[in-house]
Amino acid sequence: MRINPERLRGALAEMNRIGATPRGGVSRLALTDEDRAARDLFVRWAREASLAVRVDDMGTIYARRTGSDPLAAPVLTGSHLDSVPRGGRLDGVLGVLAALEVVRTLNDHGVATHHPVEVVNFTNEEGVRFEPALMASGVLAGAFTPDYVYSRKDRQGFTFGAELERIGYKGSATDRPGSIRAFVELHIEQGPVLEAEGYPVGAVDGILGITWLEVVLTGQADHAGPSPMSKRRDPLAAAARIIDGIRAIARAEGDPAVVTVGRLNLEPGAINVIPGKITFSIDVRHREADGLARMEEAVRVLIKRVCAEERVEPRVEVLWRAEPTHFDPKIVDTIKVVAADLGYRCRQITSGAGHDARYMSQLAPTGMIFVQTKDGKSHCEEEDAPWDAVEQAANVLLHTVLRLAGPVK
Amino acid sequence: MRINPERLRGALAEMNRIGATPRGGVSRLALTDEDRAARDLFVRWAREASLAVRVDDMGTIYARRTGSDPLAAPVLTGSHLDSVPRGGRLDGVLGVLAALEVVRTLNDHGVATHHPVEVVNFTNEEGVRFEPALMASGVLAGAFTPDYVYSRKDRQGFTFGAELERIGYKGSATDRPGSIRAFVELHIEQGPVLEAEGYPVGAVDGILGITWLEVVLTGQADHAGPSPMSKRRDPLAAAARIIDGIRAIARAEGDPAVVTVGRLNLEPGAINVIPGKITFSIDVRHREADGLARMEEAVRVLIKRVCAEERVEPRVEVLWRAEPTHFDPKIVDTIKVVAADLGYRCRQITSGAGHDARYMSQLAPTGMIFVQTKDGKSHCEEEDAPWDAVEQAANVLLHTVLRLAGPVK
Repeated sequence: MRINPERLRGALAEMNRIGATPRGGVSRLALTDEDRAARDLFVRWAREASLAVRVDDMGTIYARRTGSDPLAAPVLTGSHLDSVPRGGRLDGVLGVLAALEVVRTLNDHGVATHHPVEVVNFTNEEGVRFEPALMASGVLAGAFTPDYVYSRKDRQGFTFGAELERIGYKGSATDRPGSIRAFVELHIEQGPVLEAEGYPVGAVDGILGITWLEVVLTGQADHAGPSPMSKRRDPLAAAARIIDGIRAIARAEGDPAVVTVGRLNLEPGAINVIPGKITFSIDVRHREADGLARMEEAVRVLIKRVCAEERVEPRVEVLWRAEPTHFDPKIVDTIKVVAADLGYRCRQITSGAGHDARYMSQLAPTGMIFVQTKDGKSHCEEEDAPWDAVEQAANVLLHTVLRLAGPVK
Repeated sequence: MRINPERLRGALAEMNRIGATPRGGVSRLALTDEDRAARDLFVRWAREASLAVRVDDMGTIYARRTGSDPLAAPVLTGSHLDSVPRGGRLDGVLGVLAALEVVRTLNDHGVATHHPVEVVNFTNEEGVRFEPALMASGVLAGAFTPDYVYSRKDRQGFTFGAELERIGYKGSATDRPGSIRAFVELHIEQGPVLEAEGYPVGAVDGILGITWLEVVLTGQADHAGPSPMSKRRDPLAAAARIIDGIRAIARAEGDPAVVTVGRLNLEPGAINVIPGKITFSIDVRHREADGLARMEEAVRVLIKRVCAEERVEPRVEVLWRAEPTHFDPKIVDTIKVVAADLGYRCRQITSGAGHDARYMSQLAPTGMIFVQTKDGKSHCEEEDAPWDAVEQAANVLLHTVLRLAGPVK
């Protein structure tokens, strides 16, 4: 049994007309009219596939294909239909439509499963219009309260709660999932590893833990001309040594540990003035909690040492922490075995980016299937994946769900 | 013969009431009402000291004390009354009022000189409201045309020409100086060298040449999480190595060579995104033209090497160049001899910052006298200098002018 690649491709194309951007991407920010249109289309397709649709209090949609035991815990699979502004045609939407294709394929072949299968569309995965990300799955896992989420505002001052009602997708907390047998999310890798190593598909074993630091270095602003090099207290010089030095810290841990400086601000910012103050972020990621702590400590030691040498005052603040996520080894193994049975090259990989699977793994045995991503690009209009890889990953999802949902007893 | 320190102190205090800021600084931007009020007060004092006042087409004021040979080329001394926003109480104004104090002292003692002495207030030295800096002395030296200067606009769209007329200080090109015997400018150092080495006074031998480069590094923006360290093309990592590395280039040249990165911009600038593009400035200064060229070349070689290693595309553009200025050795020596005769500790020093003396040195034998500056701070409200140093520098100016203007023949 294989999924119908033409149908999946057609569904993607039709869905991506909603919020389409001139250069081939999509803008479907959470709870906008585009999000509503995408949901409406998804719900129509789900009903056409004889799925029972329900919506929970966060607007997450569950489209259920019943099992031979309707009371058995369902296997959930899906992702999200929302996108970043000028995002790509695959991030999120591929996971939802591949899941829909899985149940359509089961329907085509008249295959019943013991456990029900639910196709899920999580609300506001991206967290761009309403921060933070992973909002709806976070509520399911108890990381956020509904009231907190409802009160989040976008830049225009509209609240999440009001916008959810406006688009007509505010359901009930009683429609949240109960006991879940398993959750599997198919998603593009958004990184270059599978492509570089020639794997169309990845079996994701977890999500890197993240620590976000904000570093403020205070030195002495001065005229560029009359200040001899030896008398300067230049915080940018210190920042440069730190930015260069932290790379060695990540390399010492080996892949997939990473460290990134993505934001840097400098005051006063004049061409002929030595800066007085530098503020920059450090994003530290590691697969293991102890490794993450070790990296953070090494970063702090480096900052302290460099700042002492450069006579600059450092202040380091933790902006956010997310512990590493470890997916269920049985699910990861199932994905690998399924891929091998299908004759596909599949590599175990750790996700560097966050996904709803992170919170779902606190509720149920969870795994993810990654699709090779062209040039590792994502969150941009050029986001793409080889179609063969998409098709293979969808087939891996089909047979993984089939195994997890089990044959009729 | 010594200047009258109390009178100089009083004149400074009175002048600095004009445009006074709450924290003890001044805001007297060029051609504002404050600039007009400062000019009016200066002209009144000049006339009270029996000086003949004239104003040239750039608004520069010359207050002339005649010599025993009225047709002899005058000795010019002075600086500027304009300031940066929330600037200090000494930058510029001290040079004008010390020069005024010199002629007042000559008057007190009934000392005649062979050459006339002119106290000068240059228009718009700072170049903050109307760019570029050193505008009026630049016109005298032929670096800018009057029409170019008149058409310069501030942020509100007012032109230099209209504002000069509005404040009533648009004179005639025929009132520019003719042949000049010498120009001497007293100014605060604006750097930490004299203070660190215990010299109240500096004999300035020139002004560092300056090259301003803009560097654009283009790499590949990517998610911070899923991009392994080894696969990144991170322009900030390259910039960090360059910013750290260029310091060694300046140090290899020795003081007073300096190199500064004062501006840095990063795109897209999100905490969890590897930057795709970095733009930063490099301010390179050296006393000698060949040294300046050598430093620029070393900076370019460093950029090329680092960018090749980091797989980042560099683009380097020259924004501005100013050749080094060498003051007249006879004037520099005169200042040193005068200081020694007066028993003051005086060190030869090269100015890192630009001054009107730069352009004046193209028209006449020129020198500058520096005053020790507290903590090297300037262009800020805390700008200060030890009063002893101010007094000593003013006495050095007095006797330098006296020697240059010569005794009655």
